[in-house]
Order: sequence, then structure tokens, then C-alpha cells
Amino acid sequence: MRKLISVLTAIVICVITSAQFSGAQRGQQEQLLPEGFKPSSCNTFLSQYPAVNSQTRQAMFRVVAPTANKVQVDLAGKRYEMTKDEKGVWTCTSDPQVVGFHYYSIWIDSVAVMDRNTQAYFGSNWESSGIEIPEGPEGDYYRFNNNIPHGQIHSIQYWSGINGMERHCNVYIPAEYDQNIKKRFPVLYLLHGWGEDENGWSNQGHLCNIMDGLIASGKAVPMIIVMDCGDIKTNSDVRKASTNDVTQIYVKDLLPFIDKTFRTKADRQNRAMAGLSRGGMQTTQTVFANMDKFAWMGTFSGFFMGNMGRGPAPGASAASPNTQSGSNMIETAFNGVFKDAAAFDKQINLLFISTGTEERSPRDQVESLKAHGLKHIVFHESQGTAHEWLTWRRALNEFAPRIFKQE
Amino acid sequence: MRKLISVLTAIVICVITSAQFSGAQRGQQEQLLPEGFKPSSCNTFLSQYPAVNSQTRQAMFRVVAPTANKVQVDLAGKRYEMTKDEKGVWTCTSDPQVVGFHYYSIWIDSVAVMDRNTQAYFGSNWESSGIEIPEGPEGDYYRFNNNIPHGQIHSIQYWSGINGMERHCNVYIPAEYDQNIKKRFPVLYLLHGWGEDENGWSNQGHLCNIMDGLIASGKAVPMIIVMDCGDIKTNSDVRKASTNDVTQIYVKDLLPFIDKTFRTKADRQNRAMAGLSRGGMQTTQTVFANMDKFAWMGTFSGFFMGNMGRGPAPGASAASPNTQSGSNMIETAFNGVFKDAAAFDKQINLLFISTGTEERSPRDQVESLKAHGLKHIVFHESQGTAHEWLTWRRALNEFAPRIFKQE
Repeated sequence: MRKLISVLTAIVICVITSAQFSGAQRGQQEQLLPEGFKPSSCNTFLSQYPAVNSQTRQAMFRVVAPTANKVQVDLAGKRYEMTKDEKGVWTCTSDPQVVGFHYYSIWIDSVAVMDRNTQAYFGSNWESSGIEIPEGPEGDYYRFNNNIPHGQIHSIQYWSGINGMERHCNVYIPAEYDQNIKKRFPVLYLLHGWGEDENGWSNQGHLCNIMDGLIASGKAVPMIIVMDCGDIKTNSDVRKASTNDVTQIYVKDLLPFIDKTFRTKADRQNRAMAGLSRGGMQTTQTVFANMDKFAWMGTFSGFFMGNMGRGPAPGASAASPNTQSGSNMIETAFNGVFKDAAAFDKQINLLFISTGTEERSPRDQVESLKAHGLKHIVFHESQGTAHEWLTWRRALNEFAPRIFKQE
Repeated sequence: MRKLISVLTAIVICVITSAQFSGAQRGQQEQLLPEGFKPSSCNTFLSQYPAVNSQTRQAMFRVVAPTANKVQVDLAGKRYEMTKDEKGVWTCTSDPQVVGFHYYSIWIDSVAVMDRNTQAYFGSNWESSGIEIPEGPEGDYYRFNNNIPHGQIHSIQYWSGINGMERHCNVYIPAEYDQNIKKRFPVLYLLHGWGEDENGWSNQGHLCNIMDGLIASGKAVPMIIVMDCGDIKTNSDVRKASTNDVTQIYVKDLLPFIDKTFRTKADRQNRAMAGLSRGGMQTTQTVFANMDKFAWMGTFSGFFMGNMGRGPAPGASAASPNTQSGSNMIETAFNGVFKDAAAFDKQINLLFISTGTEERSPRDQVESLKAHGLKHIVFHESQGTAHEWLTWRRALNEFAPRIFKQE
């Protein structure tokens, strides 16, 4: 027995020692953070850094890299040089940031790497680090609230004949679904942006908290929200597919699967689609080609009239003068879907167009559509935000209350 | 209009160019892989590397790091030196590996980083890269099968009074749950190992595929499987808690929440707990202290009789001689739970103990327990595997069919 206990003791000591050692290497050990700084809510549970300051909205970063020559942080389009202390620990503090979620990366001797001390977020088509800049009341609607009922995110694999393999999607199911077992629910298909995936809305977007709050307060009707992947992942043998096929996958594979699997209201009046950035473009592409299936739609930082219609080819010299561009575009954009404003309003109950004030705005295009007679268009601006997740959290918070309501 | 189209064209070209550039930087662009190699199934969808060879069971790695001085790969306890070509691309090929999932990391000038071209897996308390070594028939039970009904993983936040904040758990719900809406189901609580989290069993373990297969073939009864976090995550203000409290969270917060939220059979005959590595120790700790709540249990690479009982303190000179250690340990281990073998068998329908043949084995301890008269003990060995996920996939595949069956 003494032998066994010695072995066990050795193992325990070994584990503790190596854990402490590697904790130090990683910057995970408990440290006195500078006044006003706390670990970011994106950090893995043992990590003190990155740390964020809710007053100054700055972020502090820390990397242990004794033999590296150059270490930098890339955050919100700016590259910060880190400085090394005598122990080989590199640190830097950022400029003030917009509240909410931001991707960032660490550059070690020319290689952009993840900070492994934060949860991984899929962005720009690879695994990325994230940071959350906190601020008081702004975040209330996207934080967990223990005093209300909670929905669940179902993680599901389904077979796609068009993709030729299984695909993964996430489905938000409202709290009432399991309580009221005869009731059927409307469905919103919600798409992510370029380089992200079907986990973006729940991880980066805090969708579950936002929807739980909207539904509990009666602002939004209880609904199912389907979050599929906007890319066509392929197996190792076949790594190609046309992006156009995504619409086919949504309509021919996913939609029937969802209606078969859940208690949905399976008609167009109870089906919406929305998406952010490229997902907004995929939304217009999909809905306008399938008006028999959707009656509500939203684009968040993703409405670009003109680039998907049958207008002149890019750069064509015969393009109309700028003064006529608005109305000309309306005639041709999206295969002329806006041409007859009354007919459009009869089909689509809501075309919600959202943007951040700090990014390229479709405001002029929205104004021309309104002037053209479209009544079911709603334009929303997120004040002070760019092409980032706070824009899209706010957009969802404004969009979801407006759908599936009777006139 | 020409102006707008020019702007749009510029944006599209810009996106495509930067995507191609960064794809090259990342090694994501399509390349001729060496004969016999294919992208690992853990790769993000654009990434060719790491590549794996199902015949030789080798892995090939590739890192673009023109100005780094030293780049290595750490895989299965061995550090491989990578070699650089004239373009600054580092590569290496590993020794043959055991089939299944393995963590690995890239070392760039002294810093252990993730390969961002693979999906992130939480391991060793930070985000890690993973690789899957394929082999034909071995993987059939843990691969997606389109010809059978599929369960779903529910991602849920619940409130823990003991933790003092919300916690996240995953719950496997069998396909039949939504078809047979009056039926109640037994529940297995399944724990992960040290440094992993509640996503380990579904991501690294392929639990959903394993259970779908076992249930569809009639080998296992349809069951709910709850995967909670084995660590006590704290908010930024309070970063401490005793590990002993995990058992309290399971029993007082999680268990009532699950029985309230799902159609469970809420009695001990229909409740099991199992875990891998540290989760196996947490299983013995939890079940033996709550025999009124669990009747089935399993430990996968995590049964250590002696280190949790009231035996002599580690290193104590008065420890009993080795010849008496077996029976002496049985008397005292886990507060004497094995002392009366018949009483134990009356309470616990199954004590399943699994291990890989290439790791430290509890075989001798199991033999002494059997000699002591325990009848409900089942010992399983995973041939040729160590403290790794193939051991635990196999263990689940052997354990799940044995629980919740009438005698």
C-alpha cells in the first residue's frame, strides 16, 4: 500500500507542479490586475488576461514569450506593439473600444495566432480570439437573466442531399415549446456573416439571452430560430461547391427537415429569414427567389441593392448617369422585385434593413425605395458602431419584435 | 450607378484578394497533398493541413512563419522539429499514431499556440488543436450514420445557487423523445476529464453518433445524457471555489433542474453517473456519497481506490505492508463502501471500470474487489490505447448498453 500511495502522491504532486508551471507560462495564475481592470467575460475560466476596464473601455493583453523577437496585438484594425519585461512577459493596453464583442489576434514573430486564454470563436474562416468590452445598461438585453424562463439551443446534424453529406445547425427553441406541447411556432432562419459559422449567433451574438428577454417581456412572439452554416463544407474528397447552392440547401434540405422535426407553423406567413453581412445578401438571394416560402425578412449590414440584379455589368461604360441611378436600380435590382411597390408589399410583410452608423450605409437606397412607394420597409441604425457584433445584437433586438405579428 | 457599381466591384475584388492572400498565409489554399494524405476531419472547412494518412496513420503539419526562428509540433508527448523551405513554410511528418482523436500544439519561438486551421477543442484548460487519425471499421460506431434516427444535443444555461451564477451544460436527447411525447427516460450524468469541459464528450468524444447507433440497434435503451462542467467557473470578482462543491452542484442544482426540465424517470434505478479520468474520481466521490440517487456507475481511466478513502496519509511510515494492501484498502477505501460486498451489490447494479492497456491499470484492484465478493463489477480494457479519447469512446460504447436494463 505504501508503494501505491507513493505512486499516487508522486502523480498528484507532478500534476499540481506542471499545472502551476504551465499556468505561469500561460498567464493564467492569479495576479493583481491594475485598478479598474477585470478578466474579459470571453476568457477561459482560469485566465486573468486579457483584462478589460468598463470605465475607460480599454483592454490589456499579456503574452508569455521569452524568446520571441516581436509580439503584437491586432484589435479592431489596429496593430499594437507589445513590450517585454525581464521575465519575457509581453504586455500592452489598447485604445478605448466600442462596447461589445471584438475579434483580436496575437502576432508572434510574423504568425497570427489565437490567444488560447480566451474561448475560441470562429471568424474570418479560422479559430479566433475574442474580447468583450463591458458597459452597464447597454448589455442588459444580451446578458443572462435568472428571473425569466430560458430557451435552449439544439445542436443538430441533418442530412443534406445537395451538400452530399451531413451538416450541422443550431436551433433556438423557446421556453414555452416544452410546456405547451400542442402549440406550433413560427420559424426565423437566421444567417451568419462571411468567415463565421452556425455558432456565431449563439456565441458571439448572445442570441439565447436576447430572445429569452424579448419573449419573456412579451415584445416578441415565441419563435423557433434556425441557425445553419452559410458555407458549403465538403468532405476531404470533394472540396468544391457553388455558393448559389446554399439557397438550395436552405430551401430543399433544411426547411423540410425543420418542419418535419419541430412543431412549426409551416407556411410563409410564419416563416422569416434574416442575416448579417454576407448572410444579409444570402437572405435577399434566398427570399426573393422563394417568395412562396417567406413573408418576413431582415438584412443587418448586408443590404446592397445593385450587386445582385441584372443591371449593367460592373465597370460597363453604358451605365446610367448618377442622377437616375436610384430609380434605375430599383427597376433592375434583384431581378426587378421592387419594380411594383404595391405587389412587393403584398408579398413581404417586413423588409428590415439595419446598419451601423460607422460603416457604409444603405440609407440612400432605403430612401429611394420609400420614395418609390414601398411601405413595409423599416430602417434601423445602430449608433456609433461599425461592422461588428454590437450592431447585430442590436439589430436582432429590433427585428425580432417586429415579425410574426398580425396587422 | 457607375459610381456605386465601381465601389461594389472594388469591395468584392478587395475581399477576394485579401481572402486569397490570407488563405496563402494560413496554408488554407488548395494544394496537392502527398499520396495517401487527406485533410484531417478536425480541420476547419478550408484547411488542407494537417493532413492524415489512414494507411500509415501519420500526420503532416504545415505552418507559414517566414520570420520565426524555430517551429515545432507537440503531438502525443513528442516534440517534432519542423523544417523551413525558401518561402518560410515549415513542415513535418509525425510517427504513426493511434487511431482517433489527439490534441497537439504548434510551438513558435517558445510559445505554444493553437493551429487555427483546426476546430478548437478545450483541453488542458485552454483552447487546443485536434487531429483525428482515421481507420476503416474502427470508427464506424462513432461516425455519422444517415440511415438511423438522430438525437440532439441541447445547449442549456441553468442557475446554480451553489456556484452563485449561471452554468452551461449539454444534454443529449434521444430521437424517440420528440416522437413519444408521453414517455419518460432514464438519465446518465456523464463527466469529462481534467482540463476539458462540458463540450468534450460531444466534440472530442462523438457521443451523439455513438448513442444514436447504440439506441437504433437496440443495444442501449433510449436515455437522456447530461454533460455538465466538472469545474466551478466563477465570475470576475470571485475566482475561487472548493472542488468538493462540484458534487453539491450536481446533486442540489443540476439534478433537480434536469428532472424539472425533461421527462425523466426521476428515481435512483433510472439514474447513472460515469466519467473519464478526473470525472471518474468525481463519479465515485458523488455516487458513494449519494447512494439514494444513483444505482449505476462507470469510471473510464479514473478508478483509483485508496486515494480518496481514509487510509494512511500519503507517505506515512506506518502504512501496512504490501501483502495486506489489497484487503486493507477495500476496508477503508471510499469510507468503506466496499466493506460489505453484498450490501454494495444490493445498492449498485453496475460498477463499470474501464482502462486503456497502455496506461496505468486498476486491474489488480478490480481483481481484489472481485475476490472480496463484489458481483456487479465489470472490467473493460481498451486494447492498445492510453489516456486518450479512443479509450473513452470505446468505454462509452461498452458502458451505455449495460445500464438501465432489468435483470
